[in-house]
Amino acid sequence: MKVLVIGANGQIGKMFVDKLKESEHDPIAMVRKEEQAKALEDNGVKTVLGDLEKDFSHAFEGVEAVVFTAGSGAHTGADKTILIDQEGAMESIDLAKKHAIRHFVMVSGMGVENPRAVEGKMRPYLHAKFRADAHLEQSGVPYTILRPGLLTNDDGKGSVNLYEYKGDVQYGEVPREDVASVLMEIIGSKAENRLYYLIEGDTPVAEVI
Amino acid sequence: MKVLVIGANGQIGKMFVDKLKESEHDPIAMVRKEEQAKALEDNGVKTVLGDLEKDFSHAFEGVEAVVFTAGSGAHTGADKTILIDQEGAMESIDLAKKHAIRHFVMVSGMGVENPRAVEGKMRPYLHAKFRADAHLEQSGVPYTILRPGLLTNDDGKGSVNLYEYKGDVQYGEVPREDVASVLMEIIGSKAENRLYYLIEGDTPVAEVI
Repeated sequence: MKVLVIGANGQIGKMFVDKLKESEHDPIAMVRKEEQAKALEDNGVKTVLGDLEKDFSHAFEGVEAVVFTAGSGAHTGADKTILIDQEGAMESIDLAKKHAIRHFVMVSGMGVENPRAVEGKMRPYLHAKFRADAHLEQSGVPYTILRPGLLTNDDGKGSVNLYEYKGDVQYGEVPREDVASVLMEIIGSKAENRLYYLIEGDTPVAEVI
Repeated sequence: MKVLVIGANGQIGKMFVDKLKESEHDPIAMVRKEEQAKALEDNGVKTVLGDLEKDFSHAFEGVEAVVFTAGSGAHTGADKTILIDQEGAMESIDLAKKHAIRHFVMVSGMGVENPRAVEGKMRPYLHAKFRADAHLEQSGVPYTILRPGLLTNDDGKGSVNLYEYKGDVQYGEVPREDVASVLMEIIGSKAENRLYYLIEGDTPVAEVI
């Protein structure tokens, strides 16, 4: 499957693209800058230049699945939260619909289920992610939403706790590498319009779906 | 009709509340601060304290119509654009639905129809307003959306150009006082789920609806 990875230069994005490259799937890494593209191409990865704040519809040509793991990051203002985390994601979903994408995988986050419970700087971000997730759920595009817990740079354990959302959230941490591995399992399975939470745990990644 | 005015301390909000008070309708001015409430109460207006960033569901008790004219203003950051212009509005719509409100009037703005056409600081605001308007359109709450042109502090002319959106937008200015007068006409008519644009023009306000 041709998989467009939006946010391929992010920490999870890089790990995920590396795993995709070694699989039967065919990653297309969307990045914003020429130098990011060059580094990926040197590593044998197909790339496409695309900026979420501009027209990036060309990136969807011939694509069968999309993984959205872009984020404005902690060091930019709330304007970028709107432009990237919310609107970049929602535009990606609209483009996925236009291009009849078979599986849209959204990397979301814990806490997104209830932004009003949170005070402080995180809250606008959680609102933006909530709106993007809701847009996907209502879009008609086959999807999986993945809400990992607090991300760490620990080595992946190869085992996790992936559970479907039923109104309760169990908080926890999870290494980015395990998130990338779970994304591989998700992209290898049929989209069934599910909303998952992910924390560390004891289930082997190969058995979570 | 009991009309909850959200953003009653704003420039349009104040003018509109004054007009409502002189009509057969019964304004309830929602404001954030005690001193704002006191000034309004001294002027004979019923008030309710409510903060769009917190729980303000109490403000909807016994209310039949809602006019949302709140805004975070030009002097705050994009975090407030999310918290007030987008999420405050969307929460108001959800509460209106819960309370079976008969008419929700949203004061929106010109340019909201296509935020991606705009560069710079206005764009996050236009995105946020677009999402709020779309939420209202999809809510099932009977509504009117009003998108005035560039607001001026000129005296009202008593005549305007109010037109329904059919995909084309005619840009222009409009005095805030005329916006408040048009809101009176809207609140005096049945909600018919319409999206209007408003600029200066020659149609007497009393004849626009």
